[in-house]
Amino acid sequence: MLQAIATLINARWIIPVEPDGLILEHHALAIQDGRIVALLPQDQAAACFTPETCLNLDGHVLIPGLINAHTHASMVLLRGLADDLPLMNWLQNHIWPAETRWVNPDFVRDGTRLAIAEMLRGGTTCFNDMYFFPEVTAAVARECGIRACVGLIALDFPTAYACNLDEYLSKGLALHQTLQTEPLLHVAFAPHSPYTVSAPALERIGRLAEDLGLPIHIHVHETAAEVAQFQTQHGCRPLERLNQLGLLSPRLLAVHMTQLEAAEIDRLAEVGAHVIHCPESNLKLASGFCPTAWLDAAGVNVAIGTDGAASNNDLDLFGELRTAALLGKGIAGDASVLPAARVLRMATLNGAQALGLAGETGSLQPGKAADIVAVDLSHPETEPMYNPLSQLVYATGRHQVSDVWVAGQRLLADRQLTTLDLAEALQRAREWGTKIRAGHSA
Amino acid sequence: MLQAIATLINARWIIPVEPDGLILEHHALAIQDGRIVALLPQDQAAACFTPETCLNLDGHVLIPGLINAHTHASMVLLRGLADDLPLMNWLQNHIWPAETRWVNPDFVRDGTRLAIAEMLRGGTTCFNDMYFFPEVTAAVARECGIRACVGLIALDFPTAYACNLDEYLSKGLALHQTLQTEPLLHVAFAPHSPYTVSAPALERIGRLAEDLGLPIHIHVHETAAEVAQFQTQHGCRPLERLNQLGLLSPRLLAVHMTQLEAAEIDRLAEVGAHVIHCPESNLKLASGFCPTAWLDAAGVNVAIGTDGAASNNDLDLFGELRTAALLGKGIAGDASVLPAARVLRMATLNGAQALGLAGETGSLQPGKAADIVAVDLSHPETEPMYNPLSQLVYATGRHQVSDVWVAGQRLLADRQLTTLDLAEALQRAREWGTKIRAGHSA
Repeated sequence: MLQAIATLINARWIIPVEPDGLILEHHALAIQDGRIVALLPQDQAAACFTPETCLNLDGHVLIPGLINAHTHASMVLLRGLADDLPLMNWLQNHIWPAETRWVNPDFVRDGTRLAIAEMLRGGTTCFNDMYFFPEVTAAVARECGIRACVGLIALDFPTAYACNLDEYLSKGLALHQTLQTEPLLHVAFAPHSPYTVSAPALERIGRLAEDLGLPIHIHVHETAAEVAQFQTQHGCRPLERLNQLGLLSPRLLAVHMTQLEAAEIDRLAEVGAHVIHCPESNLKLASGFCPTAWLDAAGVNVAIGTDGAASNNDLDLFGELRTAALLGKGIAGDASVLPAARVLRMATLNGAQALGLAGETGSLQPGKAADIVAVDLSHPETEPMYNPLSQLVYATGRHQVSDVWVAGQRLLADRQLTTLDLAEALQRAREWGTKIRAGHSA
Repeated sequence: MLQAIATLINARWIIPVEPDGLILEHHALAIQDGRIVALLPQDQAAACFTPETCLNLDGHVLIPGLINAHTHASMVLLRGLADDLPLMNWLQNHIWPAETRWVNPDFVRDGTRLAIAEMLRGGTTCFNDMYFFPEVTAAVARECGIRACVGLIALDFPTAYACNLDEYLSKGLALHQTLQTEPLLHVAFAPHSPYTVSAPALERIGRLAEDLGLPIHIHVHETAAEVAQFQTQHGCRPLERLNQLGLLSPRLLAVHMTQLEAAEIDRLAEVGAHVIHCPESNLKLASGFCPTAWLDAAGVNVAIGTDGAASNNDLDLFGELRTAALLGKGIAGDASVLPAARVLRMATLNGAQALGLAGETGSLQPGKAADIVAVDLSHPETEPMYNPLSQLVYATGRHQVSDVWVAGQRLLADRQLTTLDLAEALQRAREWGTKIRAGHSA
């Protein structure tokens, strides 16, 4: 008895990420109602299913959609505005003034569209965002069909988005309410950092997160200077402050973490907090090195993010995967740590775990949402083939992503975006570039 | 009076690398007899030249062809054969046995063809090779029209290529003789390393290099363990040994150099030796960190190589550029070191200087050979545009390379190779993959 399904994808290889390290050959993946129904040998699939759409991807590998666990999506509009500068000069004299002058709902809308175009074209199916006007980010993500966790941002100081903590939180909670019925949209509290959000505010956010069952997405220990300054002002390290305030829990997504002592690693493992590693941003801003191999060995869940394109300068998780693997080995002085399968897991399942979405996405398991990426490994740059996991992490470029599905919807079809007008998004981005360039040199 | 020329390229931007940091907008580059005739504003070019071929590249930047200053090209056939292993396990149990079993002239021919396909598609116009059967590498490079410096390899032990030093050198010198009339092919002595080539052999090679005016291309201080072992056996560090043997000179291309003391950096600067930095290979094999910012500040000429694809796993100089910039900042703890213009120079003009070819290639100067790469910056991933140098180094992927010329011959035309049968090269590579995979798992 044949079962009718929406889509069947026959692929040369499938790497489901769970079980760890498994590589299926000549298998098929069946999709119905936006969910993965089965992974099985192609001949069995042909005998079981009558698909509406059937794809044969003979030179391709299917992997779970990549999860960008930390970004500021609409900052793509500032990509390359100011580079090769010391961190504080970069922030205080270039990025913050540009944000103060330009960031408004239109900026966030147009920037998020370009960012989603870039992310989908590079195999990212879910992003965890932290920026102003998150309701605009959510609306654009919805329109494009991508999965997203938008951050309910909070800061001690006023911005174009909100005047004070009450306004940040009331706007955030209203958005949380609005998104309850959106299957692909999630929220997290996103207090910027311990040095820009006061202890009482963090404590309040911690209680709200507990009550509402939401993650807390925050920059922690990005640079040595920041940690030292905090210690001088407050008599403890920022992570200890979060500990005192009750924020160390499985809800915590601590981004960057380039400064970590052994006891802090143990404590993160003990409480089940997540570390979001942004290797290229940390290198480019010379922020320090996140001890990923040690965190991983200690049992801390490490996920991967690009950070914003103003400091990276791209939203390329294939690039981050490679850099995470290479840098992790270099820093540990051990070529065997962070093997290819491990970093692919960091950029998929670990990201889903950090966001509390591991039941829904992050691996190719029957029952999970069909968040899937097809990568064409038949390019000369990924031949000959000994191990598709190695090729994916150490040799593949994001332009080899051919197709992307989110919850079963094909958002990238043979390199073409299906839900986003790329020409229009580019046109808007160029207009912003012209305006901002004129303002920056003025 | 209009001048007839072969090719005129109108480009949105031209980055000639010399003068340092210059970015020309709406300029044209004129080519005649394989050489750059002029760079000038497009309206002036239209008034001066009648080109046989005229290209309008409105969204592109022209840069000098990238120079891969250290590779083992045909090792692409071992790409991904063994990864995530400690260096000595990787070498002794995987790479060396595979080489012993498989490396012959056919391997080198088929591997070099795939490597050249990958390099041209990624904007590399010249590669500095070290491998067995260099006469085969030279023949394939000649057939493809790419510029190359082939290494006259030497080792203390016999291989399929030669039995002893006399045979290594006599074969090498014969090749040097044969290539005298080849305008695009150059040679360097390529003794593998101080730990695999004896002092008398190095001394003999040093004298020959002096007599013949040839560079010496050698692995030096790749890992801390290698340096320590050498010191135990010989009572000095390998670089000191080269110094004693008279090999420290502007002829020396010292590859890797992850272990360097301050006095060694000063000495390299004093003698005018070149350091070839292979950032991704050093990270992947956890070899250590080359102190590029310090070398650069001391005035040492630093060029960039990919190393072989067995340890990288690609021949992607755009990737190395980015990693060199990011890692250099991270290691120095200073985001302002190794700015974009500096690393682009390392991958172009500095490579040419190391090879003694700076009069011929490495920058877009009238009189130099037309070794040119066009990169399409109109992709969504490199928009909006504030600074094409930043985009090139921090956001561009090698697939954005549209066209490549070597000595005026267009070897890549709108992403298509013109002198190399890619389908056949891929077919051969896949056959090698099948054979080697079967042997490796047996």
